[in-house]
Amino acid sequence: MKATIKDVASLASVSISTVSRVLNNPELVVPRKRQKVLEAIRELNYSPNALARGLIHKRTGTLGVLIPDISNLFYSAVLRGMEDAANRSDSNLIICNTDTSAARRNSILKVLYEKQIDGVIWTSEPLPSDSYEMFAKLDFPVVLAATHSLDYNLPSVKVDDEQAAYDATVYLIGRGHTRIGMISGPKNDPISGYPRIQGFLRALRDHHLKFDEAVCVEYGKYHFEDSYEAMKRLHGKYPEMTAVFASSDERALAAISYLHENQIRVPDDISVIGFDGTRMAGMSFPRLTTVAQPLYNIGYLAVDKLLKVINGDHIGELRTCVPHQIIERNSVIDCPQPI
Amino acid sequence: MKATIKDVASLASVSISTVSRVLNNPELVVPRKRQKVLEAIRELNYSPNALARGLIHKRTGTLGVLIPDISNLFYSAVLRGMEDAANRSDSNLIICNTDTSAARRNSILKVLYEKQIDGVIWTSEPLPSDSYEMFAKLDFPVVLAATHSLDYNLPSVKVDDEQAAYDATVYLIGRGHTRIGMISGPKNDPISGYPRIQGFLRALRDHHLKFDEAVCVEYGKYHFEDSYEAMKRLHGKYPEMTAVFASSDERALAAISYLHENQIRVPDDISVIGFDGTRMAGMSFPRLTTVAQPLYNIGYLAVDKLLKVINGDHIGELRTCVPHQIIERNSVIDCPQPI
Repeated sequence: MKATIKDVASLASVSISTVSRVLNNPELVVPRKRQKVLEAIRELNYSPNALARGLIHKRTGTLGVLIPDISNLFYSAVLRGMEDAANRSDSNLIICNTDTSAARRNSILKVLYEKQIDGVIWTSEPLPSDSYEMFAKLDFPVVLAATHSLDYNLPSVKVDDEQAAYDATVYLIGRGHTRIGMISGPKNDPISGYPRIQGFLRALRDHHLKFDEAVCVEYGKYHFEDSYEAMKRLHGKYPEMTAVFASSDERALAAISYLHENQIRVPDDISVIGFDGTRMAGMSFPRLTTVAQPLYNIGYLAVDKLLKVINGDHIGELRTCVPHQIIERNSVIDCPQPI
Repeated sequence: MKATIKDVASLASVSISTVSRVLNNPELVVPRKRQKVLEAIRELNYSPNALARGLIHKRTGTLGVLIPDISNLFYSAVLRGMEDAANRSDSNLIICNTDTSAARRNSILKVLYEKQIDGVIWTSEPLPSDSYEMFAKLDFPVVLAATHSLDYNLPSVKVDDEQAAYDATVYLIGRGHTRIGMISGPKNDPISGYPRIQGFLRALRDHHLKFDEAVCVEYGKYHFEDSYEAMKRLHGKYPEMTAVFASSDERALAAISYLHENQIRVPDDISVIGFDGTRMAGMSFPRLTTVAQPLYNIGYLAVDKLLKVINGDHIGELRTCVPHQIIERNSVIDCPQPI
């Protein structure tokens, strides 16, 4: 039978509220009484109940993580970083898939509110205004991971998507490529769509390359097969290109599959660079050169920031920009016939 | 200001325990009082607190999931299935990485116990006896996912690993291959090691193929690079093989990388079949033929079973064996020169 706070109080001959005070604000209890309570706790092997503590302190040591879909391989490393940061502070994560559905999101938030989680990490999607209002109404501390908001003053951790896309493109240009195509996500995605397209185009302009945006950029949704089809369309309208910038690793793998399956060699005929730095990128053939986000760190820093908000600590800068990095593997070579 | 149970009781002019009874055992309250309480709840927009409910019912609607490492891509689909099953019952998952470390495991279980989770899903690892004892001591309902135990009578959901390995090997034999190698995990892994090796060898024996186990099986740990090295050793000692059975998709991708990078064509020179059916398998070049586990279903059924145990419902069979299935893609062809 597990000892209760009542058993401790009775063994120490003090009130229940004294035991509670010893557990939570020991400095308020005179040393003699404190001693008696601590001895009773030891003797009974009493372990205070986290739920009961949650009711008293309004702190449960549980954080909610909202992600679009855990089966997307992008999240593995991000979640691992989040878990490690939470673990360091004896907190746990409740991970919920939103499927980018407003109804599902709202029902999740209701449940998390009932469970009195201490705060929320919102991952990778743009934050819609109705969710922002929900967070404000529920009084949830929120940190954005791998996304940010320019409309609201919310803490966030992400890379500079525009600059990372720029650097990936400049890397291709530095290898002698001048006819470069891009496979992008939807143009209206304010995180992984629009800024990466802008970075790509800025690099082409800065290097005085001639290009026609309607020809050299092709769009696909978020799945492998969408990008496979996008690569097919891109190659159809821009067959003279010698390099492709794909705005995610999954898109890059789809591009490679399309090219290989159509007897176009990667990187001999066309070089491909990805974006993300997922584990998959090291497992493909050829191994993928990619502009990597520090995925583990994004997760770790986001939870760290959220814990600071919850504890009322200083968080430093509101919008943290973490550095990206080009990882050179085997999918990009010098342009075979520079013009 | 959020309404409390006290506000509801006072507006309905009943005791707090009557309100609680209406929420939890309404059939025990006379209709007139019940009506008054329900009206007060509606008027105040009162929402009972999940923590408080947890203290009363010893039910929190939260399940713990222990997995070795969320950054392993194997778990994405399994976790998604778990989340969907939990969601259907308004439950949530706390996902914890054990890193297969006993110390970390025990500290996680202590925290989960404090949070009064309703039960635990133990994923993919063999269950060590100290963890079993911990579960028994803490009185946690447990279901094993993608693993099982022959030592303890615990509910589990997994494929028949021996038979799945047998079928993968028979598939290669059916395509005319007679010199088949295997890349395996550690022999002493009772889930993904030993049974899959046994299935492989049984298939060779049943088809009267000559083989020397010391030559045709090579072992690697769990990471891509371990399997890459294993493939190198296997090819070194068994260069005449025409097909490889890799006991995970990640191992298969490592085998393909090694072969491609050494100018051995897959599948033209050597066919490769994997095991798992992860999303990655559809993204490689060539696309991987693999014996697929129903990963999503394993997660879904495990949580469903756990909820049944928690609710005292009949769970059907203790050890559920879910069907595997060979998914034919492009990494296996008929043996070019059958002997």
